[in-house]
Amino acid sequence: MPTTQRIAGSFPLTLGGSLPEVEVAWEEWGDSSLPGERTVVVMPALSASCHAASTTDDPTPGWWEGMIGPGRGIDTDHWRVVCASILGSPFGSTSPLSIDPRSSHPQKRYGPRFPQITPADQARGHALLLDALGLNKVHAIVGSSLGGMQVLEFAAQFPNRLSRWISIVSTGRTTPGTVALRRVGRAAILLDPDFLGGEYELDKGPARGLRVTRELGTITYRSRDEFNQRFRWEPEPPFTPSAASFEVEQYLAAQGQRFVQRFDANCYLLLSKCMDLMNLGYGQKNYAEGVLRITAPGYVIGVDRDMLIPPTEQQHLAHLLESHGRPVKFEILSSIYGHDAYLKEYDWFGPRIAAFLAGA
Amino acid sequence: MPTTQRIAGSFPLTLGGSLPEVEVAWEEWGDSSLPGERTVVVMPALSASCHAASTTDDPTPGWWEGMIGPGRGIDTDHWRVVCASILGSPFGSTSPLSIDPRSSHPQKRYGPRFPQITPADQARGHALLLDALGLNKVHAIVGSSLGGMQVLEFAAQFPNRLSRWISIVSTGRTTPGTVALRRVGRAAILLDPDFLGGEYELDKGPARGLRVTRELGTITYRSRDEFNQRFRWEPEPPFTPSAASFEVEQYLAAQGQRFVQRFDANCYLLLSKCMDLMNLGYGQKNYAEGVLRITAPGYVIGVDRDMLIPPTEQQHLAHLLESHGRPVKFEILSSIYGHDAYLKEYDWFGPRIAAFLAGA
Repeated sequence: MPTTQRIAGSFPLTLGGSLPEVEVAWEEWGDSSLPGERTVVVMPALSASCHAASTTDDPTPGWWEGMIGPGRGIDTDHWRVVCASILGSPFGSTSPLSIDPRSSHPQKRYGPRFPQITPADQARGHALLLDALGLNKVHAIVGSSLGGMQVLEFAAQFPNRLSRWISIVSTGRTTPGTVALRRVGRAAILLDPDFLGGEYELDKGPARGLRVTRELGTITYRSRDEFNQRFRWEPEPPFTPSAASFEVEQYLAAQGQRFVQRFDANCYLLLSKCMDLMNLGYGQKNYAEGVLRITAPGYVIGVDRDMLIPPTEQQHLAHLLESHGRPVKFEILSSIYGHDAYLKEYDWFGPRIAAFLAGA
Repeated sequence: MPTTQRIAGSFPLTLGGSLPEVEVAWEEWGDSSLPGERTVVVMPALSASCHAASTTDDPTPGWWEGMIGPGRGIDTDHWRVVCASILGSPFGSTSPLSIDPRSSHPQKRYGPRFPQITPADQARGHALLLDALGLNKVHAIVGSSLGGMQVLEFAAQFPNRLSRWISIVSTGRTTPGTVALRRVGRAAILLDPDFLGGEYELDKGPARGLRVTRELGTITYRSRDEFNQRFRWEPEPPFTPSAASFEVEQYLAAQGQRFVQRFDANCYLLLSKCMDLMNLGYGQKNYAEGVLRITAPGYVIGVDRDMLIPPTEQQHLAHLLESHGRPVKFEILSSIYGHDAYLKEYDWFGPRIAAFLAGA
């Protein structure tokens, strides 16, 4: 089970307002007595918890089980690995599911009143945990998708608190092409009559809307090529508009069903918008100035078939850093798994991440 | 205003069952005394009516105004042009909006009880109109997207009734990668509490769900590159999950709103599933046998950024035809307009279609 770190005191937010207190749920792997220079911090994506890998306490496989462990890409025989659930997610850190300490008695959950956060806020959440752990500086921070956004924000806001960073299928600034896809995902939740403006009871939430959102998400996380080689092309009756006549439809329905059992609609809306608002240039003179706060050596990875955050976005980021003399390595993986390749292609990612962490 | 042709007698359907009668709404341009060998038939896509271009009766621009007219790609100074609204669409031909003649008194619209049709049925709808017009054989049939599917089905079912065909951003068989996207569009309609299992009153239909469906459709009809070069990258407050903070969101919302004013949810569901069920191999020994019923010279066009029916699908079709000695020309257009390029890139399409119609 994760440890929960409560951090008292007001937590100011990028877009204004504040949280009166913050809790951070986290787990760790490897030798916990290792110092910061032997510590790697993993930052989760939208749908991931701090349970990145199995532990003695919780032997269920984590979401990056193939990457974190003895002899793996992030080798727990060598590194202390720390992972915290992100602010706004339903996995133990402060989120719409938390009780709002400012609410009148009987106290209520934040629900739809949770203030809009950005990846910049989530990066400061990770920094607070490192403070509490006495880790002024760590060896590396690693993340994919929304996790990779937190990595970039952490590296920009705290350039002296890390030696290296790895940002996978992420972006320094969200583009309209991605916003369009996320907007439709949010719209499906808002359509569900059980959403009730976000004031639903937790066991009566907008499950149907959240399922549709996840179905669309799954499409954007994978690729047409994967679907076309994986699923049967012939439909089966019934051939009505509401029937899942094709195997790919049954797959999507199952993915949606699994998701509603572990996620919360208000958290989803918050984090979806949070990703839209990713912008290293926010509050800076311009985007480049925001990016160039990053000084540590970095590794930027994209995937050719990424439909959500395509490799042009990582390429622009790497090019901007490289143009200004910042040390950065950039690679594109070719994979039918698209945006999700970091959860599948361990033979490709593992050795590369291991080598970069080792100082290659 | 379109002319409506009523065709009495049972109309059997590909998947079983029948319609007791069929009405076909259609318009025409050019010299109506021209014979079949000087006639070009245009077949509409999902959201298009028979009003493909302006007429004296109805001077409002049609959906292919830039293609059909004097001196245009389909030159009405040379060709008689005929276009019929497709079966299942809300534009005058038999559809879920039609009164079911088999229903008991007081008679009701088909609504959600309209039998599932396929592009093969729609192609036979076009053939019935040609019968009624006394056109045994026409010079060419042309269509894009679902219209291009009807073209392929017509050419396969009635190889002696055409001299040439043009199929744009279409496919001979729908693949799982496309089904996935359409499924989510249908799910948004089904989510809307006003859908009522399809039994809504026409002025109280599932407008919110249909809007979301069209927003997703619009994304798949265009391209990320277009959105990223066309719309502002900076969001404007409010930054709530339900707000259209980005310009691209306001654009999508406007597209959705326009669509609900002219479309019907039951028709949409029917036509969306109809496209999923496109398969020239249906009822044949195999797919190739179905395709090879096509004998007339054809022109297959794809667009590189087509997210819905990408050019690999047109390439496979053209390759299969060419491999068996069928005369076929294949081209890929590079366009930021993706699937919708046929509605935008008239400078590219116009001369090519004109030349192919002229026998090039």
